[in-house]
Amino acid sequence: MQKKSMLDLHRVDVEQYKTVEKIPVAVVLDDVRSEMNVGSVFRTADAFVIKQIALCGITGKPPSHEIHKTALGAEDSVAWSYHKTALEAVEQLREQGYKICSIEQVHGSISLEQFPIERDKKYALVFGNEVKGVNQAVVDASDCCIEIPQFGTKHSLNIACSAAITMWHFFNTLNEKK
Amino acid sequence: MQKKSMLDLHRVDVEQYKTVEKIPVAVVLDDVRSEMNVGSVFRTADAFVIKQIALCGITGKPPSHEIHKTALGAEDSVAWSYHKTALEAVEQLREQGYKICSIEQVHGSISLEQFPIERDKKYALVFGNEVKGVNQAVVDASDCCIEIPQFGTKHSLNIACSAAITMWHFFNTLNEKK
Repeated sequence: MQKKSMLDLHRVDVEQYKTVEKIPVAVVLDDVRSEMNVGSVFRTADAFVIKQIALCGITGKPPSHEIHKTALGAEDSVAWSYHKTALEAVEQLREQGYKICSIEQVHGSISLEQFPIERDKKYALVFGNEVKGVNQAVVDASDCCIEIPQFGTKHSLNIACSAAITMWHFFNTLNEKK
Repeated sequence: MQKKSMLDLHRVDVEQYKTVEKIPVAVVLDDVRSEMNVGSVFRTADAFVIKQIALCGITGKPPSHEIHKTALGAEDSVAWSYHKTALEAVEQLREQGYKICSIEQVHGSISLEQFPIERDKKYALVFGNEVKGVNQAVVDASDCCIEIPQFGTKHSLNIACSAAITMWHFFNTLNEKK
């Protein structure tokens, strides 16, 4: 089992990436403090061909040395926009036909594996601040909340890991339904 | 949709966690350079009740300020051991009945969503160095390789994100089969 070389991986370049079919999923980052987390979300979004990322509030935006350190260039391939508030981003995405889903542990949330992902819908997945999570006003403006089930001692996951799990779950489920 | 309070989340404490049923999955970290990544893997492993973590080679081990910053105490709940080499860890795990699966892009790897996860088996998931991946000798000593499918411009995912995706996928699939 020889490891694949860079050439074996047949990756696309930034120009080709623009023409690759994306999955109908947007990621919204609501007041994410760490630019390393932001960069990591870009890197995962690139791998799973996420349509766009909305960076909101205090969330850092490219060009940024810190974001680049973990995005490794994925900040140039994935489409992104900046919004003063996540509420503003969410309203724009809703107008574009996205269903707004905050990834948050709330009363009435749906467990990730039970969330019905439909091929003809568009989903905006909102991830919040490292300490405070998604702002309550954004939760209130969401169509639903999705919760990643957890059975350990800690009350939450790292935001880049939560985003990776959720993006993978949507990517994989949408591909299964092809 | 009010956010759940810490109390609403009903998390267990470190003592209770020891008695919680774990999933039959071990995580092996082979020469992981960043202690922030190690801590992040601990935090996710705690959430998905992973049986044990084997820290190998240059991978840092608790107690460590850097690991604690991202593990947030999960280094006290999840069982771990240290091994001079991942090869040594892998041989011990094999003796304990684990099937050894390196998460690596190799010729002949199985795509994560196609990997048959069986409820009566034990799996050791090996993750490698941030730049070099899993050492070829460890790949050679593995029963199989699992690849996370990726369609972007970058050649790999962050190791904490790869580990989160794979742990979630095993956790969720095993729970579905209950």
